Amino acid sequence: MSALAWTRRSLLASAMAGAALCAVPPRLLAQADPMPSWREGEAKSRIVEFVRRTTVEGSPDFVPVPERVATFDNDGTLWAEQPMYFQIAFAMDRVKAMAGQHPEWRTTRPFSSVLDGDRAALAGLGERGFLQLIAATHAGVTVAEFEDTVKGWLATARHPRFDRPYTDLIYQPMLELLGFLRANDFKTFIVSGGGIEFMRPWVPQAYGIPPEQIVGSSGRTEFRLDGDKPSIMKLPDIEFVDDGPGKPVGINRFIGRRPLFAAGNSDGDLQMLQWTTLNSGPRLGMIVHHTDAEREWAYDSASPVGRLDKALQEAPGRGWLVVDMQRDWSRVFPFQ
Amino acid sequence: MSALAWTRRSLLASAMAGAALCAVPPRLLAQADPMPSWREGEAKSRIVEFVRRTTVEGSPDFVPVPERVATFDNDGTLWAEQPMYFQIAFAMDRVKAMAGQHPEWRTTRPFSSVLDGDRAALAGLGERGFLQLIAATHAGVTVAEFEDTVKGWLATARHPRFDRPYTDLIYQPMLELLGFLRANDFKTFIVSGGGIEFMRPWVPQAYGIPPEQIVGSSGRTEFRLDGDKPSIMKLPDIEFVDDGPGKPVGINRFIGRRPLFAAGNSDGDLQMLQWTTLNSGPRLGMIVHHTDAEREWAYDSASPVGRLDKALQEAPGRGWLVVDMQRDWSRVFPFQ
Repeated sequence: MSALAWTRRSLLASAMAGAALCAVPPRLLAQADPMPSWREGEAKSRIVEFVRRTTVEGSPDFVPVPERVATFDNDGTLWAEQPMYFQIAFAMDRVKAMAGQHPEWRTTRPFSSVLDGDRAALAGLGERGFLQLIAATHAGVTVAEFEDTVKGWLATARHPRFDRPYTDLIYQPMLELLGFLRANDFKTFIVSGGGIEFMRPWVPQAYGIPPEQIVGSSGRTEFRLDGDKPSIMKLPDIEFVDDGPGKPVGINRFIGRRPLFAAGNSDGDLQMLQWTTLNSGPRLGMIVHHTDAEREWAYDSASPVGRLDKALQEAPGRGWLVVDMQRDWSRVFPFQ
Repeated sequence: MSALAWTRRSLLASAMAGAALCAVPPRLLAQADPMPSWREGEAKSRIVEFVRRTTVEGSPDFVPVPERVATFDNDGTLWAEQPMYFQIAFAMDRVKAMAGQHPEWRTTRPFSSVLDGDRAALAGLGERGFLQLIAATHAGVTVAEFEDTVKGWLATARHPRFDRPYTDLIYQPMLELLGFLRANDFKTFIVSGGGIEFMRPWVPQAYGIPPEQIVGSSGRTEFRLDGDKPSIMKLPDIEFVDDGPGKPVGINRFIGRRPLFAAGNSDGDLQMLQWTTLNSGPRLGMIVHHTDAEREWAYDSASPVGRLDKALQEAPGRGWLVVDMQRDWSRVFPFQ
């Protein structure tokens, strides 16, 4: 049975299950391939086959619905991350917007590098510099205020290369994969190194993933009650970094189940892939390999952002599916 | 329309929606009152009325399904908490079981107090003593090993007063309330001061709440990879205390939506009730007041465990529903 024929049958089965008491035939028969932006080939076949054998009743690898957990990295896996993580672009724009209230930033690094547009200095910021930018621009406001600021930024900021809102740079094939998994009763989670509160304002609409299924890095927060007005205040301390070995820790804390499926694109996802696939029963680990300089970007082991080295080396031995963006995706962004 | 008539209609509506394409009449018409262990009265009416006005389409207070979040404290709200939190009973039993490998505990407090059964010393342990017991008995093992230990304990330990497994001491009316909310498309979460990993092994079966909807206190953990064997190791440091002002913080971090409904029973739930109800739109805050020394226990402002003082004082002004266990519940435990 071809992948397409099976997915049609699968959709039909879902429809039948949903209308179990009905004699009326469902109308979903005519639905097309649920992943049209994936070219036919090994990548697509392996995904479709994995979903089939874990969800078709009677399959030896059948997995009950509550255990169908799929986790996705965000930056570089669900949306682009070049030339810098979009959350860093946001933080830099915030530094510029807030500079009037912080005259000391004119002469204090890393803020002065941002205000001077000093690319060389910015390239060398390192994790500590980034965390300083995040702490200064992500704290001292309530969560509600911060989320409004993120929404405002997304509504106006443009990506430097594509001159489009950052939320346009989500991957169409990954949207289809998320939808395909959900249509087969997988619960889809984000497990990202990015900040939870930076993601929540736009992730539900962009990916169909609700706020309570977003795992990410976080700063400390504090409950305050001012008369009858409660709020959650964002403090400058980093509380949890959901990256690398932090990803299985975050998965354990927030989800409490080991995923059946995990997708990432960098060494920051290595431990999530290990935690997911080095387990009994059917598991699928997937790496999005950025190989398409024309439609998106081409980078891996030498990239300062989204470095993919160890995980790519481990992939063949672990049986992880490496998706070649140029070869496997007929479309990258929804607007293309 | 009486509450009962409405709940019947509501169940019918749910059934119709679930079988939307069907001409076959659903068989749920005959379903009885979904909360039979609640006596007719103000408490039950307010709950039923709240669910009705937030879920019936066309109601001015209608709330879309994704926003129907309900949060429940656990100890004293969903199951009993006397004469001590059951997790402390577990920790004490673990001290006894592990004492052979820790000869130093014979002469070191608080461990010696547990081993000597020194009730006076145990009563005066305080938070620091409890945290020491928790750290010593909840760390140094993997999460999987710990969860097996919890399951083993629950299978054999007996509650001192009722001589039954601790998981028998869940409140029948609260099970019915959880089910009633879920039947009306509320997503039910636990937001407990108890440890996440102490709850996960039994909460899904006991309450129908999946592991990813359990918010609680947690210790630090660490990802380890030993050859091809990954694990999450439990470390002795406390990471997050999900109690009092920590509850809105936990809700923000794990759920990212403000609840529509929250239930608690002690001052540890005060800020969760404030965070839930001091908001625009329809909200319901509920306090389980332990007033039934015969079937359960009677305690509030003077109790060392589950102290209910400030929250009870604030309840009338805030419009929180105070459930009187003796008056409002026809049954307390499922076995009664």
